[in-house]
Amino acid sequence: MAAAAAGVKKIIIDTDPGIDDAMAIFLALRSPEVEVIGLTTIYGNVYTTLATRNALHLVADRIDIPVAEGSHVSITKGTRLSVVDFVHGADGLGNQNFPPPEGKPIDMSAPDFLIEQANLYPGKVTVVALGPLTNIALAIQQDPSFAKNIGQIVLLGGAFAVNGNTNPAAEANIFGDPDAADIVFTSGADILAVGINVTHQVVLTDADRDKLASSTGKFAQFMCKILGVYFDYHREAYSTKGVYLHDPTAMIAAIKPSLVTCTEGAVRVQTNGITKGLTLLYNKQKRFAEITEWTDQPSVKVAVTVDAPAVVKLVMERLMD
Amino acid sequence: MAAAAAGVKKIIIDTDPGIDDAMAIFLALRSPEVEVIGLTTIYGNVYTTLATRNALHLVADRIDIPVAEGSHVSITKGTRLSVVDFVHGADGLGNQNFPPPEGKPIDMSAPDFLIEQANLYPGKVTVVALGPLTNIALAIQQDPSFAKNIGQIVLLGGAFAVNGNTNPAAEANIFGDPDAADIVFTSGADILAVGINVTHQVVLTDADRDKLASSTGKFAQFMCKILGVYFDYHREAYSTKGVYLHDPTAMIAAIKPSLVTCTEGAVRVQTNGITKGLTLLYNKQKRFAEITEWTDQPSVKVAVTVDAPAVVKLVMERLMD
Repeated sequence: MAAAAAGVKKIIIDTDPGIDDAMAIFLALRSPEVEVIGLTTIYGNVYTTLATRNALHLVADRIDIPVAEGSHVSITKGTRLSVVDFVHGADGLGNQNFPPPEGKPIDMSAPDFLIEQANLYPGKVTVVALGPLTNIALAIQQDPSFAKNIGQIVLLGGAFAVNGNTNPAAEANIFGDPDAADIVFTSGADILAVGINVTHQVVLTDADRDKLASSTGKFAQFMCKILGVYFDYHREAYSTKGVYLHDPTAMIAAIKPSLVTCTEGAVRVQTNGITKGLTLLYNKQKRFAEITEWTDQPSVKVAVTVDAPAVVKLVMERLMD
Repeated sequence: MAAAAAGVKKIIIDTDPGIDDAMAIFLALRSPEVEVIGLTTIYGNVYTTLATRNALHLVADRIDIPVAEGSHVSITKGTRLSVVDFVHGADGLGNQNFPPPEGKPIDMSAPDFLIEQANLYPGKVTVVALGPLTNIALAIQQDPSFAKNIGQIVLLGGAFAVNGNTNPAAEANIFGDPDAADIVFTSGADILAVGINVTHQVVLTDADRDKLASSTGKFAQFMCKILGVYFDYHREAYSTKGVYLHDPTAMIAAIKPSLVTCTEGAVRVQTNGITKGLTLLYNKQKRFAEITEWTDQPSVKVAVTVDAPAVVKLVMERLMD
């Protein structure tokens, strides 16, 4: 890629690849609106070690893009992590058993890399967070100016006013580290949360997959190789003939923000009990007589609508490019 | 009232009067579709002792209707109760300082009365629950057949997919005793929950109040006396020129069920943490791989729409009768 032109957004992708993570990363690599200045890895769809391996595999042709390994455990270190091999395959990439990548992660942790880049380009770096928010929360805790210095955090997370996908209360990324998510939402950073209330509107159909398969584009070809497991899971869990484009939709919210609309309010995360991982947006419409856990918390943006056909079209076009 | 005709629904009103409780009780007394066979009292808008006093005052002309005093504390006895004198006035009835009622509560607790009536008329009694659900939960715990014997429980409670009114997470009645609410929702009884997502659509305006004031009906006159505090609170908290008809809407759902539509699913209540009192409906659309707290729980009905103009019209007509 040529040196970044003016107006091109620098992004760091915090990711747990993951089939839809792969699609989101490819989409970013093909999008002139953004310059991918690094990947940071996290557990979620797979354990962190495998996430790092997969991230290196996905950007193997782009040795200019550093990969920084992130946390292996949730921020309170108390959570027993479980990964979702039935969604993305045991290897996180559709059970394709790709050979080990040749690249290596940089000698810097994900939170340190995030802090370094935010300080290097204050207000200019967007983090697109596609997994549990542990790395971002650690960066916020380690550097009190991180929340101010980071340009924006666009995150795939939450189930706002709808059922979750890990359980009826919680979306998977927030459930993966609810304490970290609460730290991020209350940090004062410029945040846009894209929840499954929005991403469940964005479906890649069987017909779309057939069209991708007919393309000679390398990213389209790669995606078609790994999408099988993901389609199977959706058929079983949701009775849908198609797959939700969670991570690509969050990526589009960074690449082409006009395709989503947002509301604003204070978001807090329940960190224990039967609704652990639940995200609750306070819309500030009612004035409560008593102080609540939402009082005086900063507002964040929460996506409420998406131009789903336009998102699918853009994803398809860029993958087939 | 003449002996109940066939098809007339026997109801017990579990109540914490409360300005909108008063309106709901009057509405029931004026509705030929139902026969009020008793009131049971509970804390919420006021403490239980005052709720009993107010209940006796409201049905002073109907000595045939027994009033049974209910629990003074939440079911775990661990909750410090707080009442909302800024909503309903310090006396619960608009700061009118009515004289003490002449009637007395019956010599039977609210849960015992509920159990007695459910056993006397199995499947024929509807409980319209307008406060925290402690009495109902105690009845369920004390009599394993109560959930089966009670006809239906229509309850004003919950904030389904919207912000609460006690805090951003919780509606006041559920917040008043979340453990009791969870017991009720998972009891297997036939339940219709009318939450503030629905009752916030039903507004009695200033103009409606003026019309009530022009009526010579005794209930209309009484309501106009006590509504001032309630209007003031709504103006302050919501910037609305009108008041939400929470309890009357729940009562209408028992009197004329065709004015609401419902969805169904398993409802659980978060009982601790920052979203304590949050009601979460699992719509059973997704099949989760793992067992969740909602798995195999009975379905309840949750109101999703209401014919608000028809509700207001019916309430007005019957109060002015």
